[in-house]
Amino acid sequence: MIRRLENSIAAIATPIGEGAISVIRVSGEAAIYKVDSRFEGRQSLAKAKSQTAHFGRIINNQSETVDEVICTIFRAPKSFTGEDTVEISCHGGIHVTRRVLECILETGVRPAEPGEFTQRAFLNGKLDLSQAEAIADLIQAQSDKARQTSLDQLEGTLSKQIHLVREKLVQSLGLLELELDFSEEDIALIDKKKVENLLKLGISETNHLLRTYKYGKVWREGVRVALIGAPNVGKSSLLNVMLKENRAIVTAVPGTTRDFIEEKMTIEGVLFRMIDTAGLRETEDTVEKEGIYKTWKVIQRSDIIVLVHDSTKRITKDELNILETANKKHHKKLIVANNKIDLQAERILLKCIPEEILVVETSAVDNIGIEKLKDVLLQKVFDQTQVEDKESVIISNERHYSALLKAEQNLTSALESLKTGESEEFIAVDLRAAIDSLGEIIGIVTTEDILNNIFSKFCIGK
Amino acid sequence: MIRRLENSIAAIATPIGEGAISVIRVSGEAAIYKVDSRFEGRQSLAKAKSQTAHFGRIINNQSETVDEVICTIFRAPKSFTGEDTVEISCHGGIHVTRRVLECILETGVRPAEPGEFTQRAFLNGKLDLSQAEAIADLIQAQSDKARQTSLDQLEGTLSKQIHLVREKLVQSLGLLELELDFSEEDIALIDKKKVENLLKLGISETNHLLRTYKYGKVWREGVRVALIGAPNVGKSSLLNVMLKENRAIVTAVPGTTRDFIEEKMTIEGVLFRMIDTAGLRETEDTVEKEGIYKTWKVIQRSDIIVLVHDSTKRITKDELNILETANKKHHKKLIVANNKIDLQAERILLKCIPEEILVVETSAVDNIGIEKLKDVLLQKVFDQTQVEDKESVIISNERHYSALLKAEQNLTSALESLKTGESEEFIAVDLRAAIDSLGEIIGIVTTEDILNNIFSKFCIGK
Repeated sequence: MIRRLENSIAAIATPIGEGAISVIRVSGEAAIYKVDSRFEGRQSLAKAKSQTAHFGRIINNQSETVDEVICTIFRAPKSFTGEDTVEISCHGGIHVTRRVLECILETGVRPAEPGEFTQRAFLNGKLDLSQAEAIADLIQAQSDKARQTSLDQLEGTLSKQIHLVREKLVQSLGLLELELDFSEEDIALIDKKKVENLLKLGISETNHLLRTYKYGKVWREGVRVALIGAPNVGKSSLLNVMLKENRAIVTAVPGTTRDFIEEKMTIEGVLFRMIDTAGLRETEDTVEKEGIYKTWKVIQRSDIIVLVHDSTKRITKDELNILETANKKHHKKLIVANNKIDLQAERILLKCIPEEILVVETSAVDNIGIEKLKDVLLQKVFDQTQVEDKESVIISNERHYSALLKAEQNLTSALESLKTGESEEFIAVDLRAAIDSLGEIIGIVTTEDILNNIFSKFCIGK
Repeated sequence: MIRRLENSIAAIATPIGEGAISVIRVSGEAAIYKVDSRFEGRQSLAKAKSQTAHFGRIINNQSETVDEVICTIFRAPKSFTGEDTVEISCHGGIHVTRRVLECILETGVRPAEPGEFTQRAFLNGKLDLSQAEAIADLIQAQSDKARQTSLDQLEGTLSKQIHLVREKLVQSLGLLELELDFSEEDIALIDKKKVENLLKLGISETNHLLRTYKYGKVWREGVRVALIGAPNVGKSSLLNVMLKENRAIVTAVPGTTRDFIEEKMTIEGVLFRMIDTAGLRETEDTVEKEGIYKTWKVIQRSDIIVLVHDSTKRITKDELNILETANKKHHKKLIVANNKIDLQAERILLKCIPEEILVVETSAVDNIGIEKLKDVLLQKVFDQTQVEDKESVIISNERHYSALLKAEQNLTSALESLKTGESEEFIAVDLRAAIDSLGEIIGIVTTEDILNNIFSKFCIGK
């Protein structure tokens, strides 16, 4: 069920933990009045102007002070939700923040459900659906590229593009319907060429957006890189050196169990998820076999494979085998790190490696080739998709991708029907479906299912 | 070294994590100007009035948008620090919040050290020292009592009390110094009785404050309760039933290793730290002996001991032994929970338990006696100290306690000297020391050591 706007809602909007301050957000018609009933300050909040901040105390129903706070007033429609809103900035302890929230809830304000503030912003026309989704992505962004993509989306660049394409399709639907209205009069009113061109334009632009999804997915989810190699070739040392200057941005992923530890680093704003795998070699040992099986799973799920080789040793059949299989069978992007080149004396030339595979000479000990390796990783990302210019819109959301895919299929089908001389009704059905699919992205056409699914993924307080 | 006020400082003021919003605090003479140089909005922040909120974008040094934000302006002296302050409310992701902070730091604003905002508030005369300390306590408060005690302190009730006592002492010092000035004239100007009365009053009030520390410690740190008993008497079930309705406030303590798991619950605003120990009985097994040794350690460090006994069994020598030792040797408050009383048929009367030990009949299964047990726990806390009336000031900080103790000793010594007819110089030295000790609490007399020690315990952003 779409949640109603009748009640005022409240939630802690800042992360839970100890900090200097926490912010509790209260939104709804009665929000200012309700908070004011628990606020003691120089000025009553009820009379306060929009966008002003007021120092005072939040008191409980026994008139005891719960905390000293600053309340900032945002009057409708000049607020995030489009409703009257109070942001209560209190002291940042877990206990004190909860107590302040409780005081507000005691007045009959309801606890907000996840994403309910953003949902209200959408329902009140402050954001369209793709913009609302961009907020969740922005909060979860782990790299500059992810942040930029969501920010662009929040600022409406995707919405504008979708509107443009959709308008062209509505225009051609108009032409078709004109024809339908007069169809009994048997006059060929329609300029078929014009409809065809509009459809082709629609397909081409939908196609263009669809192609950016590879990019968007990379920006949003990062690039999976598997480090493989025999034991003692220096995989872990190499990884550690690469991660060193990136440590600041490394954050733990909670609640996920993995067979391998994943470390994150960014190179020029792109997130790389580095997976250090177990050694890979033919074996009869069942435990080791299990490990190798898992490593192959990692390889299959990765975007780029870095085979780490010990430059003091000859390349083994196993190693060549891995390269061959990953390259030919799994079509993975491959890099060979010829490691330990600090041990020059014992160095042996690499042979038999397929020409198309890039070899980078590295030394974790002497910090040689590390920058080169990073550059090569970045290049591999970029040759995966054409380089798009900075200004273009990127599709990063799977829901948008599916909707665009549906639209493209419907448009292709419509164009086909037009070419083979099918009746206008037939073409119009496909065209309407395509228009609806595009509308779903920005929320012009939405079902309750779509809405609930989108907003339930938000954190509480957003 | 006391940190200088010349630079503007910035830090993330909200807890680190994912939330709807994060707040970055920027304070200092150039704060508004510096943030404005990275802000694009309808209005320039430099011209904005105090306590107004402004929507806009934070841009980086390449003029790219980093995030959409709301900047709230607080102009000196109407801000927390007493300096010009901007609070930047941005989207609450870890990555995006850091990027916004980076943009501000790029303008030459310095990252704040832990507690530096509060230290500035102190140095600018917005808070005295005990009020500054109250903020750290308020943020760390885990119960209503702890929150109320720190809030009272923040609102200056302790400071007022200290000021009052200190003024009386300054007054008697004045009388003494008057005497010293004219001492060569050998006229007994001084009203010895008056000085004596003022000293006695000072001692009595210092004493009263010192006595509240037992309370303050309990409010601040909670009451340690050890649950002991033989295996299978139902300790864990009893604890779980008690914790049930308290679960919401239970939070994990990070980074501490303990031999026993400590669960937290509040009863009427008082925090109880419940420690479920291993079974206790005489044994020859070395591993079990180690466990029992640790249990005795827990008993010694606990405020209250709850011995859980299985009511279907006779009380054992071991159990009586524990009660005896904890009671007579360790002077612990004891409660016996005569558990499993749902199994009425097999019930055996408890004998030989010392009269002064309270027995509560309980059943974790049928939820019998749980409320009674909680009431008894609360009573035990209150008979530990006299019940203070609600309005009185509570000492909860160890630093304040030490300073008061020093003041009391000096005053007692001064009174002694006065009574035994020592010279006024002698008395004045002690009196001055007492006045200084009291001054240390509120920060009238402070050394750099005291300041650095206090503020370094704060979190960054506070």
